[in-house]
Amino acid sequence: MIPVVFHSLVDDPKAWEAALRAHLPEVDFRVDGPPEGVVAALVWKPPPGFFAPFRDLKLVVNLGAGVDSLVGRDDLPPLPIARLNDPGMVALMRSYVLWAVTRYARDFHLHARSRQWRYIHPRPLATHRVTVLGLGELGTPAAEALAGMGYAVTGWARSAKSIAGVRCLHGRAGLEQALAETDTLVVLLPLTRDTRGLLGAAELALLPRGANLINVGRGPVVEEAALLDALRSGQVAEATLDVFETSPLPADHPFWAMENVFVTPHLASITVPEAAAADVAESIRRVLRGQEPLHRIDAERGY
Amino acid sequence: MIPVVFHSLVDDPKAWEAALRAHLPEVDFRVDGPPEGVVAALVWKPPPGFFAPFRDLKLVVNLGAGVDSLVGRDDLPPLPIARLNDPGMVALMRSYVLWAVTRYARDFHLHARSRQWRYIHPRPLATHRVTVLGLGELGTPAAEALAGMGYAVTGWARSAKSIAGVRCLHGRAGLEQALAETDTLVVLLPLTRDTRGLLGAAELALLPRGANLINVGRGPVVEEAALLDALRSGQVAEATLDVFETSPLPADHPFWAMENVFVTPHLASITVPEAAAADVAESIRRVLRGQEPLHRIDAERGY
Ligand SMILES: NC(=O)c1ccc[n+]([C@@H]2O[C@H](COP(=O)([O-])OP(=O)(O)OC[C@H]3O[C@@H](n4cnc5c(N)ncnc54)[C@H](OP(=O)(O)O)[C@@H]3O)[C@@H](O)[C@H]2O)c1
Ligand SMILES: NC(=O)c1ccc[n+]([C@@H]2O[C@H](COP(=O)([O-])OP(=O)(O)OC[C@H]3O[C@@H](n4cnc5c(N)ncnc54)[C@H](OP(=O)(O)O)[C@@H]3O)[C@@H](O)[C@H]2O)c1
Repeated sequence: MIPVVFHSLVDDPKAWEAALRAHLPEVDFRVDGPPEGVVAALVWKPPPGFFAPFRDLKLVVNLGAGVDSLVGRDDLPPLPIARLNDPGMVALMRSYVLWAVTRYARDFHLHARSRQWRYIHPRPLATHRVTVLGLGELGTPAAEALAGMGYAVTGWARSAKSIAGVRCLHGRAGLEQALAETDTLVVLLPLTRDTRGLLGAAELALLPRGANLINVGRGPVVEEAALLDALRSGQVAEATLDVFETSPLPADHPFWAMENVFVTPHLASITVPEAAAADVAESIRRVLRGQEPLHRIDAERGY
Repeated sequence: MIPVVFHSLVDDPKAWEAALRAHLPEVDFRVDGPPEGVVAALVWKPPPGFFAPFRDLKLVVNLGAGVDSLVGRDDLPPLPIARLNDPGMVALMRSYVLWAVTRYARDFHLHARSRQWRYIHPRPLATHRVTVLGLGELGTPAAEALAGMGYAVTGWARSAKSIAGVRCLHGRAGLEQALAETDTLVVLLPLTRDTRGLLGAAELALLPRGANLINVGRGPVVEEAALLDALRSGQVAEATLDVFETSPLPADHPFWAMENVFVTPHLASITVPEAAAADVAESIRRVLRGQEPLHRIDAERGY
């Protein structure tokens, strides 16, 4: 048997047990059971001190893509941490980004508000400049798909990249250049020490006046007060926001009443256990053989 | 010199003249000039009797993709008719269809209306069944792109087709099967004798209750009264409509006031002269050599 512990208030333990068992028949799936012998912890925001009793642990699996709520903790054991990653999550994020960008590029947000016949001549997609911040597991396929549709796409990451059809920039100078040449900005960065508040008033001011912003990464990457100001002044024309400084977004938050803000309740992408379990099972087998898990993150770097 | 006549109340003659000259330097571009020697007519809805004076005509070019307003006329000379077709038009139509389908598949129309934090668990895209009626120059790339995003796509046309990743059906039985297995229906058919009223009350009743409909082909392919009934009863949950029985859609039309109808003012796709002119020039050269033009349509068939 391979004992595994599960903790999440938002994920379904039954679904995870069935999915994991399909790929790891010898799993002993524990939600409450004894900590002895447990080799892997599948967790989403476990309570403080959660890890201490698990002395045989070899792997922590974060039940999502973003590990920001995990890696900041001071009770984290010095073990490999893996994140979830599956094609379904990639496809959902891609669909969100394509939809949100196209809504602006094709003026559909304006048509939705008009409720009368008001023709706006379509512009070729290649004239719409989209910048994707973050070229990881989710950002790269999103940028590729946007380029495939015909948009003029720039991507930005920490390291230099080469992606067919996408102009790739990096570093602070790259960010400033990208922002200055953007019609729609897509934020797909993880939340880390370095990305917190990355887009403040100064950075939003670098965008051409009237640019649009889509945040599907993490709320605190964009300074909310600065974004509010920019949306009110028209510096940022429109925003589509799936993530926020405070989540759920409070009922009295000004975003709810702003016509130029489209709020979605943190669902740009999800993983389904059936799709993600194969890689989790493989990671468990690997750490038991003394190998690296799949989708290992760097806790120091923060993603 | 190659004399060409131009008639359109919606297209820009100056832009067309410049674009055509770039590909056919010897063009004699006439908007009002004498009919003698004119070999090609570039037209959009010319007045009755328009063609009679042009005795040297060898080619009629329809300044758009849909030829329904041209082929029904009884004053049409027995000449090859070509339509416009260019990659920009394909890209614009694809972007419209991807956006409109994704809006439903991802529940964005519901989030737009909610204005409060109401989580709806995302469903894998492969569970959303999209049927595309019409697999021509525009329908095929749209169906392919939908399949590439992860949707479960069925296509339907007059003839049997084979498109990677798309289940292709044809004939009346194929239509009935497709309709019965559809979450979102995309109408990308031309308007012909055979397609006028193709989707009436009986056909809409074949859809699963609560399916969505997107019409970017031609209005009269869907019986408007039947669609209104279906939208009111909930048989059709939502509609995105770019084309109508009467266009512009009259200001007092019930669609304007219906929350479950998204109206766009016939702009799903357009051709820009710069992109379409190369093929028009080539078609003119071809007919002057006694060859078939590009993008020739079959006036008898109606598309
Ligand atoms: N809204 C939702 O439903 C949802 C769902 C899933 C994920 N997310 C969020 O999306 C984020 C990204 O996901 P992912 O899977 O693509 O992450 P990932 O694979 O870890 O990629 C992160 C990307 O961000 C770049 N990056 C990190 N720090 C940076 C910095 N300081 N400056 C510039 N670039 C930096 C990385 O650059 P390098 O490539 O150079 O390392 C990498 O390209 C997640 O962390 C999560 O917060 C949101
Ligand atoms: N809303 C807009 O902005 C906009 C812009 C451009 C075009 N349009 C409309 O879109 C239409 C389609 O454009 P397209 O370029 O894709 O046309 P196309 O290349 O002529 O293709 C027409 C498709 O419809 C199928 N079809 C025709 N009659 C049929 C019937 N009776 N039963 C079943 N299938 C039938 C054809 O089947 P086969 O392949 O078997 O022949 C073909 O696949 C145009 O005619 C125009 O009305 C709208």
